Amino acid sequence: MPEVDVKQKVLAANQAAAAALRESFRDQRTLVVNLISSPGSGKTTLLEATVARMKDRYRLGGLDGDIATERDADRLRKAGIPARQILTGGACHLDARQVDAALAEEGERLRGLDVLFIENVGNLICPTGYDLGEDFKVVLLSTAEGDDKPFKYPAIFSKAKVTVLTKVDLLPYVDFDVAAVKEQVDTLNPEGRFLEVSARTGDGMDGWCGLLEDALSRKRAS
Amino acid sequence: MPEVDVKQKVLAANQAAAAALRESFRDQRTLVVNLISSPGSGKTTLLEATVARMKDRYRLGGLDGDIATERDADRLRKAGIPARQILTGGACHLDARQVDAALAEEGERLRGLDVLFIENVGNLICPTGYDLGEDFKVVLLSTAEGDDKPFKYPAIFSKAKVTVLTKVDLLPYVDFDVAAVKEQVDTLNPEGRFLEVSARTGDGMDGWCGLLEDALSRKRAS
Repeated sequence: MPEVDVKQKVLAANQAAAAALRESFRDQRTLVVNLISSPGSGKTTLLEATVARMKDRYRLGGLDGDIATERDADRLRKAGIPARQILTGGACHLDARQVDAALAEEGERLRGLDVLFIENVGNLICPTGYDLGEDFKVVLLSTAEGDDKPFKYPAIFSKAKVTVLTKVDLLPYVDFDVAAVKEQVDTLNPEGRFLEVSARTGDGMDGWCGLLEDALSRKRAS
Repeated sequence: MPEVDVKQKVLAANQAAAAALRESFRDQRTLVVNLISSPGSGKTTLLEATVARMKDRYRLGGLDGDIATERDADRLRKAGIPARQILTGGACHLDARQVDAALAEEGERLRGLDVLFIENVGNLICPTGYDLGEDFKVVLLSTAEGDDKPFKYPAIFSKAKVTVLTKVDLLPYVDFDVAAVKEQVDTLNPEGRFLEVSARTGDGMDGWCGLLEDALSRKRAS
């Protein structure tokens, strides 16, 4: 079987597993967010700051995809929510069956949450095509990564409902044109939301948490 | 054919093409460096600064892998060296046949160079397993990406002969423990070299260019 057919088969199997996950999340009224970015854009740091602001009012949980180490799930557990690491065995993205298996093994700890955060493997390319049953994808881009990235990685910036520009506290120290990035994202994804955040200073965190709360309200009302 | 067999076949075909490239580079006495990192770690910026320091004494050239845009090759051409963009058609890494085809199409412009820089697709995972006929791999990690990355992406930090810590000018503004990163790299790769560089301020550039010149001398003498 040629390489391309194998890939199609893998994606079709993933899609079936993702559809089952989506139905299960709908039954549980759990908002599911799939966070995607380069390594080091600040996914875990954004989640730590999010958990600090929301955990007293909402039941939150996390799944963390990585090639190696338990570090990200450890950080979320320290932040005060249940979290499970999924080691992908070298694969550069999570798939829906890994998510399903991890949730099954965690049982009640990750059932019936208000929000489940899925932190994908650090990678701007591979995770894009793998539906995990999420409500929407969020792509993060840090101000230290350069302002040419949306056009260089158009697939994820087209697909993600939300783009979060992270580490805006570094803007004084880097060459980074926020308007140029916003324009690229607008071109690729005219319906998308664009947020500017520093998890370190708290800048923009109200907008991000508000967006999550709105999405959760809409899901509950649907 | 199961997915894993297809992958083995693809890697074997790549290895054959890489061996042919390596022989050709040896005949031309061209030092070939395969640069790998996350998106936005500063591969192109490091190369621009390298070209500024070395182009008067050496014949340099570049190949730039990306999903989309000609931007990186444009930057190297503006810096004053011949360069060709390779668009991978969605793939998250370069392969040896793409390199071979690009060199054939460029002809004399990229033949008989002193140093050929291959800037891989921005990705810490996929490019690791694809030999491009290079003399050695260089992995870049920026100080903005967090100090947990070598253990999270052990394959590339084990394989790369050189780790370049980039953007050290940002150290005062980020939480980043250089000693912790160096220790992780030493554990994974006891024979590897570890350099600290800021292409922006020029810090560490002498060491990096010296390493390239030494490697070129050794290749010419062999």
